[in-house]
Amino acid sequence: MTRELHVAVVGATGAVGQQMIKTLQERNLPIGKLTLLSSARSAGKKVTYNGEEIIIQEAKPESFEGVDIALFSAGGSISKALAPEAVKRGAIVVDNTSAFRMDENVPLVVPEVNEEALKAHNGIIANPNCSTIQMVAALQPLREKYGLSKVIVSTYQAVSGAGAAAINELKEQAQAILDEKEFTPEILPVGGDKKHYQIAFNAIPQIDKFQDNGFTFEEMKMINETKKIMSMPELPVAATCVRLPVVTGHSESVYIEIENNDATVADVKKLLADAPGIVLQDDPENQVYPMPADCVGKREVFVGRIRKDLDHENGFHMWIVSDNLLKGAAWNSVQIAESLIKLGLVK
Amino acid sequence: MTRELHVAVVGATGAVGQQMIKTLQERNLPIGKLTLLSSARSAGKKVTYNGEEIIIQEAKPESFEGVDIALFSAGGSISKALAPEAVKRGAIVVDNTSAFRMDENVPLVVPEVNEEALKAHNGIIANPNCSTIQMVAALQPLREKYGLSKVIVSTYQAVSGAGAAAINELKEQAQAILDEKEFTPEILPVGGDKKHYQIAFNAIPQIDKFQDNGFTFEEMKMINETKKIMSMPELPVAATCVRLPVVTGHSESVYIEIENNDATVADVKKLLADAPGIVLQDDPENQVYPMPADCVGKREVFVGRIRKDLDHENGFHMWIVSDNLLKGAAWNSVQIAESLIKLGLVK
Repeated sequence: MTRELHVAVVGATGAVGQQMIKTLQERNLPIGKLTLLSSARSAGKKVTYNGEEIIIQEAKPESFEGVDIALFSAGGSISKALAPEAVKRGAIVVDNTSAFRMDENVPLVVPEVNEEALKAHNGIIANPNCSTIQMVAALQPLREKYGLSKVIVSTYQAVSGAGAAAINELKEQAQAILDEKEFTPEILPVGGDKKHYQIAFNAIPQIDKFQDNGFTFEEMKMINETKKIMSMPELPVAATCVRLPVVTGHSESVYIEIENNDATVADVKKLLADAPGIVLQDDPENQVYPMPADCVGKREVFVGRIRKDLDHENGFHMWIVSDNLLKGAAWNSVQIAESLIKLGLVK
Repeated sequence: MTRELHVAVVGATGAVGQQMIKTLQERNLPIGKLTLLSSARSAGKKVTYNGEEIIIQEAKPESFEGVDIALFSAGGSISKALAPEAVKRGAIVVDNTSAFRMDENVPLVVPEVNEEALKAHNGIIANPNCSTIQMVAALQPLREKYGLSKVIVSTYQAVSGAGAAAINELKEQAQAILDEKEFTPEILPVGGDKKHYQIAFNAIPQIDKFQDNGFTFEEMKMINETKKIMSMPELPVAATCVRLPVVTGHSESVYIEIENNDATVADVKKLLADAPGIVLQDDPENQVYPMPADCVGKREVFVGRIRKDLDHENGFHMWIVSDNLLKGAAWNSVQIAESLIKLGLVK
């Protein structure tokens, strides 16, 4: 494909939107025109893209005239209102919100896992939740080779997943605590929930709001999206999601059971070392393992601490880390755009 | 028992030693004399106990003459050298290091779980690892009522478990990062290991050194000590231990399988609400759950986020938080001393 594309980014001033623009610049998509959209409040701001100044415009239905691919990351209500308008005008939407993820007519895609699902799209493609993406990217090679029968994950999630304001809150609180000054939590764990708690030097076992079953929405996203992306509706998946005083980089302690009795730790390491999008960092003797501070700005998913369970012969433990703004959001969205082009799905 | 006791604290200037002195003051042990001991380096410092000034002395074999109960928390090599000397002189030693924990002649005690094991002591009683204590305290009521067949834990551990110098390292690093200044990690994850990593705004999946099987010593402590304290050598236990930028308060995401098919979340909540040493903090609708920032200075173990697994009918998830310097160390040691007195084991 040689035609130059018209790409739009909706939510261009947000933590993820900024990473989308940066990632588009780093990659080699054939972009002829880039339209940057936002709420009315942020419209008028200027962004430099490939040396050219682009003025951010307010996102409206008619903003999508002539757009080939629109990357949305401006919150679920914006996506619900404007994604169908973009599709109506001929754009393919890659949506980073949870608005359409569980819609059975919308493919939920991590290219390393289910790129082929893109072929069945109806205009909207959903980008999964950040914590889900990095986990399924690491589990897919294991599932393909050994089968997968159980997943239990406990997450260690960064505040940038809650947006730029949450990053500021963490930094300001940390400074206040170091200075032994008073402070009032205002955003975390969930901007729209009733109570707010200290995040600096703390760990909050709540991400997104609670459901009636005692799990949070974030936990249910990990459970349901994993089953959908992997096309394994019966796979037992359990999640406990925890917010940490980390700016960027989600970590996950993952226990899995596979269907093969013979796989060794060395086999699993070799498999992951060779898998697309995965970097193996696993050398305990030399204290090599993934950490959030090391993953920032990188597109890969880092896996380490791979151990065989001491009791269950099919059980393995691992530690999965990735930049939640990149593979967890902006990069996976841009990667979906690249897959759409590669598969000839952009007309 | 009305006789006044002579109690010694070994490691009186350390993070745990200071909490031991504070806890002894808060509780009502019949202490006639308190001897505070340390390395030669810290000897000569003064501590105020119940309005009286006590000069810290260098710990030597003869320091234990006339001592009834000696609380050790000055590192494994001090315990190995001096605990037998204290016993020889008639003291009962409660040792907070890992020196004797897996010795089959040494009871490893969490009073809520296995107080009776104290009766078989041979002079030394071991205080378990901090992360183990809070977990078994919460699991014991469930095991008693429902049976217990599997435990998988991922920890979120505070730096104070690595001593006072690690607390300073976290605070200084956090300030350096906020000021965008350079810094050199020198202590964490493990003072005596080869490499040191950033802990502020990071998560390090290593606590204590690595074993040949890929697990860390901290993880193996949780696994082996849990089996010993609960007298369940065959219980499948798996642990992943992670150090966080939290000063005090360990958190744990725990998955268990019980042997009973009928227990509901309400049953488990009721059981834990009524259990000794446990505080139930579990009201998702009102965002009530335990957090490390809330547990500091409290002796109890806090449990919340109790959920039934969505796939395994005998599976439950929970979130367990406690002050690692208190129930995880100083308070459990003092509590053992109280149990010894109550059981008439201090002659």
